[in-house]
Formats: sequence, structure tokens, C-alpha cells
Amino acid sequence: MTDLPKYPRVACLLIGDELLSGRTRDSNSHHLAQKLHERGLPLIEVRVVPDEEISIVKALRSLKKRADIVFTSGGIGPTHDDITADAVASALQVQIGEREDAMAILRKHYAARGEDVTDARRRMARIPDGAELIENGISGAPGFSLKGVYVMAGVPAIFEDMLARVLPTLPEGPKETVYTVAGTIGESQIADGLKDLQIALKGLKIGSYPGPTGQGGQLSIVCSSHNPATAEQAALAVKALFSAQGVDAEILEGRPRQS
Amino acid sequence: MTDLPKYPRVACLLIGDELLSGRTRDSNSHHLAQKLHERGLPLIEVRVVPDEEISIVKALRSLKKRADIVFTSGGIGPTHDDITADAVASALQVQIGEREDAMAILRKHYAARGEDVTDARRRMARIPDGAELIENGISGAPGFSLKGVYVMAGVPAIFEDMLARVLPTLPEGPKETVYTVAGTIGESQIADGLKDLQIALKGLKIGSYPGPTGQGGQLSIVCSSHNPATAEQAALAVKALFSAQGVDAEILEGRPRQS
Repeated sequence: MTDLPKYPRVACLLIGDELLSGRTRDSNSHHLAQKLHERGLPLIEVRVVPDEEISIVKALRSLKKRADIVFTSGGIGPTHDDITADAVASALQVQIGEREDAMAILRKHYAARGEDVTDARRRMARIPDGAELIENGISGAPGFSLKGVYVMAGVPAIFEDMLARVLPTLPEGPKETVYTVAGTIGESQIADGLKDLQIALKGLKIGSYPGPTGQGGQLSIVCSSHNPATAEQAALAVKALFSAQGVDAEILEGRPRQS
Repeated sequence: MTDLPKYPRVACLLIGDELLSGRTRDSNSHHLAQKLHERGLPLIEVRVVPDEEISIVKALRSLKKRADIVFTSGGIGPTHDDITADAVASALQVQIGEREDAMAILRKHYAARGEDVTDARRRMARIPDGAELIENGISGAPGFSLKGVYVMAGVPAIFEDMLARVLPTLPEGPKETVYTVAGTIGESQIADGLKDLQIALKGLKIGSYPGPTGQGGQLSIVCSSHNPATAEQAALAVKALFSAQGVDAEILEGRPRQS
């Protein structure tokens, strides 16, 4: 495994024409964001690029410059549009070829179904030199990791299975304490107070999020800090800002999710 | 309006800590992808960055180099974490200040509710010099466009409302004809045939997409071409590949969506 800093910065590269044509709505980067957040590791950027070698290579090199870890999703199956392994090898400037350990996994997987590893399936045993395999409990095709790049399947169930195997091998970052203060109010009614609070309390991050419909809905103010006392103090102060406008707000633990 | 090439290339920049922390699952880039596709305009890349000026500026400059149009989403509200307008002005190297036309929109919007344009709300009238406003039918705060950059709200209902106003002003690209061939089969069973077909037919793009659960599910083969006859010929050939494996596949028009 690559040597990682104590608190590695993480980026995500989604590969696939289907995401850019609007056919498929990504869920992998959202799942990754939640899991990294639970582990205290910051996701600093996500990119989506087409199934095109030059685009994958450029994006991966660029993300590697600013992140210690890059997860990729998509393009490791048996068909002609699955070019991720070769693109990653090219971006990391290593050789790639059919690997015996990957072939063994494929043989075992297909043998259990009474099938052979055909030429198309052999394509999934192409692994860059020096990479460690990432197995999955669903399909035969392994992902791999090399130099801080974790190459994973695009199919959500397989991506999630692979991630569950990789996460325990990564460092754990400092956990944040997060409170969400929610109530029915216009953002601008408490904007000045939020700004003052953001300036007054050190090590605090305040985010202001209206609901998906725009006007007239629920406003969520997310207060997060690595110091639990700061997060709690902020949440109480935000609740007071709502009260001053005659609105009774609720304090919830964490960041209630919104899709 | 900026002079655009006949078929502009489009990129999308999503701005917001809530997307990277896993609190919110993006829907704006997916909506944009679908609408651009319907208009025949290619979406070539999507990026997600935090509410941080340097990250926004760098990403926008980088996307502007490879795309003719960049849509941004998020960070144009009244709170301290809404820094998109200033970051865009910085990236495009123009001045920014409070604009009378934007103030007029805000005054009208809040007057209808018997309210004033407070200091926090005035922040939403900060518009880079030379930009055209993008109004919306939901909230007061306008977006704006400048030099091919379209700065839109992050709240999905407002993003979609703004996009519906912007799209008719953009060029229309050549439409693709798309067929999806769907059946229950393993990807690798027809991979060789798909590859041959991809090589044999010019101006055809074939994508192979297993369902979200991985093994044992539905496989969708998407055949797209600017030549309707090519797309149809490909779809029939793919159906024959399924048949040769004893699987009866269905041919559907378009790219049935998957979320």
C-alpha cells in the first residue's frame, strides 16, 4: 500500500458517457462522500468525464496533484468501452497486462456458474503492474489500487461492496461534531446573524441550505466543528437567531440527508 | 451574449460543501445533462468543488479552457457562504458591484411580500460588470451570464427554472437517434459481438450498462448515432447478439433513465 499522510485528502473521478448524457444519475460519489465523512476524511473534489482515454488520463493526473487518494468509478467491465484500467496505467506511467491472480478470481467465479473465462472476460484480468487487487462479493471482476488510486466498478452495488473492503484500510481522520438547526424561515432573515457567528467562533463551519423547492420551505443551518462544545454553542446561537424572528427551530444531530 | 461556436461544448461546475460532505445528492447536473442532450449539445465534464474561492476560480478557469459554455450551480444566496458571484468575477477578471437592475428585481420581489431589501439581501444584487441577468420565477435572486459562464442557483427548483429560460437562447446541436436494447444477459456473453459492431459501423456509439445491482440483472446496450439508419441497424444487430445466446431482447427508443 502507498504511504499516505495522516489525514489524506480524497478526490473522486466518475467515468462514463451515461452520466454525461443524462441516462444515469450518479449515486457512487454521493455514497463515497457519506462514507468518507463518517471516517473523518475530506472529499475535496469530484469530476465526471466520458469514456475517453485522454480525458481520463488528464483528469486523473490533475486530481492526483491535489489529492492523496483518488477513487475512480466505472469502465472496468468486459466490453469495448471499458478502458479505465489502461487509462490508469497510462496516467500512472506503468505497464499493464493480464495478471494471473486476477485470472484466478475470474476462473473461480465463472467455474461456480459452470462457465468459462472467455476472451471478453479475460479483459477484466488486465491489471497495471504493481497494483493490489480489490475483490468484490458480487461479480468476478476485481478492481485494483495503485499509488493511492482506487479503481472501482461503476455498478452501484459493486462499488459499494468494494468500498466497504477498502475503507477499513484507510486512515481515520478527526471526527466532526455536527448539528443541523431547521425551521421555516427565509435565509436572508438570519444571514447577518450567521455571518457574525461565523466570525465570532473559531474552528466552526456554518452552511445555510434552503430546501429543494426554493421559497417558503424549510431552511437548514448546518454547524460543524472538530470541537463538540463549539458546534453545540453554535447550534444554540442559531436557534436563538430563529427565535428572534419568531420562528421555533429544531436542533437535530448530524446532517439529515437530502436527495 | 457571447459569440458561441455552432455546436458549443458545455461543462458544469457544482459549488457546495454539502455535496462533498454527503449531505445532499446532486440533481442539478443530472437535470442539465438530460436537457442538454435533448438539445443536441454535449456535456463534456462535470466538477464538484467546495465553497472556497480559490477552488471555484481554478476549476472555472480550467473548464473554460475546454468548454465554450460553463454552467455553475450554487452559492448565489444571501449568506456568508455564498461566494460564487465574487469568485466568478475573479476568474473572469472583471469588477463586481451592486447592480441597479438586480436591486430592482429584489425590491419588487420583497415588496410583494411587504418586506424590505435588507443588507443581507442586497448581497444578491452583487453582479459582475457586463453580465446579463437570469431571472427566476421562484425567488428574487437573479443569476447571471457572462463570457459563456451561466451562474445559477443551487436550489433545484430554481436551477431548473433558470435553465428553462437559458436553454432557448443556446444553439441547437445535431440530434442523435438512440435505441436501447435490453435483456437479461451477462455483459461478457455479447462483448465480442459488440466490439465487432462498434468497429464495423461508422458514426455509431455503443454503451453497455449492467443494472445497479450487478450480476443477474438486466443489461442495457445503448446504440446512438447522428444517422438514424445506423442506430437502427445497430439495434437490430445487438438484438441478434442476444438471440444467438438464446435471450429475447427488447428494443426501446431513447435511453430509458436510471436513477
